[in-house]
Amino acid sequence: MVGIVGAGNVGQALAWRLHALGFSVALLKRPYQVLEAPFAVASSWEGFPWPALETVFLCVRDVQLPTVAAQISPRLTSKVPVFHTAGSVELAVLEPFFGSQAGVVYPLQSFSVGRPVDWGQFFVFWEGTSAAQTWAETLTQDASKVRFADSKTRLRLHVGAVFTANFVNALFHMAETILPAPFSREVYLPLTKEVLSKLRVLSPEKAQTGPARRGDQETLAKHLALLQEVAPPLAPLYQHLSQYIQSYMAQSSVQ
Amino acid sequence: MVGIVGAGNVGQALAWRLHALGFSVALLKRPYQVLEAPFAVASSWEGFPWPALETVFLCVRDVQLPTVAAQISPRLTSKVPVFHTAGSVELAVLEPFFGSQAGVVYPLQSFSVGRPVDWGQFFVFWEGTSAAQTWAETLTQDASKVRFADSKTRLRLHVGAVFTANFVNALFHMAETILPAPFSREVYLPLTKEVLSKLRVLSPEKAQTGPARRGDQETLAKHLALLQEVAPPLAPLYQHLSQYIQSYMAQSSVQ
Repeated sequence: MVGIVGAGNVGQALAWRLHALGFSVALLKRPYQVLEAPFAVASSWEGFPWPALETVFLCVRDVQLPTVAAQISPRLTSKVPVFHTAGSVELAVLEPFFGSQAGVVYPLQSFSVGRPVDWGQFFVFWEGTSAAQTWAETLTQDASKVRFADSKTRLRLHVGAVFTANFVNALFHMAETILPAPFSREVYLPLTKEVLSKLRVLSPEKAQTGPARRGDQETLAKHLALLQEVAPPLAPLYQHLSQYIQSYMAQSSVQ
Repeated sequence: MVGIVGAGNVGQALAWRLHALGFSVALLKRPYQVLEAPFAVASSWEGFPWPALETVFLCVRDVQLPTVAAQISPRLTSKVPVFHTAGSVELAVLEPFFGSQAGVVYPLQSFSVGRPVDWGQFFVFWEGTSAAQTWAETLTQDASKVRFADSKTRLRLHVGAVFTANFVNALFHMAETILPAPFSREVYLPLTKEVLSKLRVLSPEKAQTGPARRGDQETLAKHLALLQEVAPPLAPLYQHLSQYIQSYMAQSSVQ
């Protein structure tokens, strides 16, 4: 039986995935969480089938990992691999408790409860016990999407994920702030989709377009003037990001 | 015959599209541009079939529009509609030359020479002569993707396009700057694709995830420390964008 501690976005996604793959799953949620599932769900520490667990995934908040690890280690037999799933937490946090059975399984994806994701389309990174690699391959069902990443590399991957997920989302918030009714972010989705398509085959330097890349000072000035009028907090961000583009284009070999 | 002045990304895209739709097209390129095409291509002002043109699209740089408009207006009959295709240039730039025949056809998409785009999947905005609306509908082949936008609204649309295209691309440059070999931006493409999928159905506030949204100060501090070590110019951008997320989440009704 696979135990999953924590029923947030990642915990629920793992539970559904492993259940769909035919594993027997037990998920530990908080007492107030409402959750209907075809697998075992416990709401209390005591109600969780610790002795039956052959693998444990810890899907709790980063700061809780040491506490949770300390609490569960006496309840498990010494041969049970225990993984965390966090981008920015070192493997070393688990090693004092689980020794060579400690591992990390880090899926580089944005999970939201209720939204199925396409396992096998994104990468899953592992570290520590080789069981972590095995589980990453089980989850993806595609070994080509599984990579080893040490804790420092995983931290870098996670920072990059913040740029390409949370900050991309924030840019849509900014764009929507500027837009007059009746227009909405819908007008931008095909544009960003095309940017992603280009990035499949071109470097960001080669794929870049727009006034900052062209050095079109007149348009940059018009844009800044508009922002200062309709959304002043966006003006320094516009300037900061445009300067970033101009500085990397200046250093680039791309014309 | 449709005349297209300027054979950059937009001019070439329009020429190919209109040719594919069965129109007779003449494209005016610069003498040094190499371009093979199934439609008429001229390299000089004198070689362009001005008297035969029934419609003209100006696809030149923003700053050149008044000059080009002044040069072509004496060569056209007064009933020929003339459009520009720029996001940040007012219709008023063309009106002194073409009066009520002046218009704008602004496709909100990122064009690159040699990359076909899916007309009808993105919006095309128009202003001025009603012929602009008709041509927008011809280009999209889908009137539901055509919208009127006055010059001020179009400027806002264009600024938003910078955020959701040029700046998204820049975020990929940043993410790649942080990544150690052998990883590349490829690891982030499925993540950003998922962010876009969420934005089809959720507001940016509801779709937001990550340490800034969670108020996870420990992870934010780890990320900043890493950036200060491996890519110092990215640290202030990380902070700036994280603060933006925290400020809009604080004002939001989304928990």
